[in-house]
Amino acid sequence: MLNRVAYINEPESWKEEFEFYHPLTVRFSETDMFGHLNNTVPFTYFEEARIEFFKSKGFMQDWVKPESEQIPVVADLQCDFLQQVFFGEALKVFVKAAKVGTSSVDLHYMGIKQNDDICFVGRGTMVQISKKTGKGVPWTEEMKQKLGMRASVK
Amino acid sequence: MLNRVAYINEPESWKEEFEFYHPLTVRFSETDMFGHLNNTVPFTYFEEARIEFFKSKGFMQDWVKPESEQIPVVADLQCDFLQQVFFGEALKVFVKAAKVGTSSVDLHYMGIKQNDDICFVGRGTMVQISKKTGKGVPWTEEMKQKLGMRASVK
Amino acid sequence: MLNRVAYINEPESWKEEFEFYHPLTVRFSETDMFGHLNNTVPFTYFEEARIEFFKSKGFMQDWVKPESEQIPVVADLQCDFLQQVFFGEALKVFVKAAKVGTSSVDLHYMGIKQNDDICFVGRGTMVQISKKTGKGVPWTEEMKQKLGMRASVK
Amino acid sequence: MLNRVAYINEPESWKEEFEFYHPLTVRFSETDMFGHLNNTVPFTYFEEARIEFFKSKGFMQDWVKPESEQIPVVADLQCDFLQQVFFGEALKVFVKAAKVGTSSVDLHYMGIKQNDDICFVGRGTMVQISKKTGKGVPWTEEMKQKLGMRASVK
Repeated sequence: MLNRVAYINEPESWKEEFEFYHPLTVRFSETDMFGHLNNTVPFTYFEEARIEFFKSKGFMQDWVKPESEQIPVVADLQCDFLQQVFFGEALKVFVKAAKVGTSSVDLHYMGIKQNDDICFVGRGTMVQISKKTGKGVPWTEEMKQKLGMRASVK
Repeated sequence: MLNRVAYINEPESWKEEFEFYHPLTVRFSETDMFGHLNNTVPFTYFEEARIEFFKSKGFMQDWVKPESEQIPVVADLQCDFLQQVFFGEALKVFVKAAKVGTSSVDLHYMGIKQNDDICFVGRGTMVQISKKTGKGVPWTEEMKQKLGMRASVK
Repeated sequence: MLNRVAYINEPESWKEEFEFYHPLTVRFSETDMFGHLNNTVPFTYFEEARIEFFKSKGFMQDWVKPESEQIPVVADLQCDFLQQVFFGEALKVFVKAAKVGTSSVDLHYMGIKQNDDICFVGRGTMVQISKKTGKGVPWTEEMKQKLGMRASVK
Repeated sequence: MLNRVAYINEPESWKEEFEFYHPLTVRFSETDMFGHLNNTVPFTYFEEARIEFFKSKGFMQDWVKPESEQIPVVADLQCDFLQQVFFGEALKVFVKAAKVGTSSVDLHYMGIKQNDDICFVGRGTMVQISKKTGKGVPWTEEMKQKLGMRASVK
């Protein structure tokens, strides 16, 4: 099924490149009357996992300070739903930086179930913008390195 | 059923005192796997109706200005669920100021269905606090009058 | 900005093809600490608008019946965020069937502000599946016609 | 502050009687433009903690089976907000059965911060009802014992 997803070139290597994940459990209030996880909720999971990802790199802590001059802004988001997800399921939501731009980063997501089935995948571009001007603020070299950490290790 | 609700003295007059209402339709994403409106959602409806109530009195517009020195804070909230509510139902959520304090107001809520059945009722105290000190800021005479408008007409 | 969105060929004709829209107002609980509409919420708006779109065609009423053998399932969803949206803004969320498949339909979305600025656009494929088998159930001719109503009028 | 809460008789013993808790972290999407946790969200936390509480007793697993003849229904819910809660805070949400009725149970809740400050408290009655008749279904002796486990140990 991953073959049909436009932003996934090679499913096997695409999966292997993920390292960071955020664990979570599907809440009752996140289901809907069709008996499964409502399809708007994975975007909340992406946000939660993305923030934990940025926290792990030390970015988020600065962005949420009231005096911070930059905030991260989501330019776009998408999700492909591969399997139904049900109340109480324990999921791992993986995040990786697929491509780092001047002031943006393309993040990819993968949600997996306890049996390792992939239930949804996604992607989206984040941009670091200035609160004042609303324009993109370039990553520092340090930030770039942290975002591309894995690649640079190679 | 209203007889059993502690904050309702006389069901008939309690119902009649409502004037303001906010209309809304139950969203699909607000249902849960039991097939009905999830019980956390009426609190969102209360918030929405309360804000429209405050807008109708000209309060909300000031509170959301970044330069505003006061914000409204919810001290407590409660809801009694009298009937199940389903996807797509059109509800009216009524709001009234049941009691006006120095810097607070006790708001009551009533949700009714299209057949006029009451599906949920609720209440909660709001306090106008100072952003700086976190302490209550007394209502102006004008605000008090607007909150108690109906009573003062009597 | 629409030029950069992969699923929009010609921005002008793309915009003009929309007819159906669902009006809504941004709730307070839908904002986040960055002061604007949280980016997970437009997907809820898409759902709400999509359901109203399907209601207008008479599809939704059947799908939510417990005895219905088919339900609509979202295969994928995406959103491009073009402008910040704030508390209390009145939006129109437009929906159209961009392409009708055997048992699926590709829906496009456009959110506009009161000044006619486009604040977000999106798309996603819905599939009508069998509750029992989980497989796609072809649209009837009548359904196809209703989905493509506009095109067929030309 | 707990002295002012109607359903708390003796704050100290009330706090001490809690044993079960569910840990969680405040999501970014759960904040609002006032910069803190939106006040509708603790009810979602109560639901999540309540379900984990019932899971720990083996009740929830049966209720969510499609063939189950009983479901739990929330009769009422309330929350007192004692302290602001912010993005990223790690909370413990405690739950206890304060009083067990024939087919109902009065649950109490307490949310605490990492510094042990109580940020919100709450309560609400749950009723086990029959899916068919909508009427209360008495707890079995075994269920009663499990709900009142702590008391019965004394």
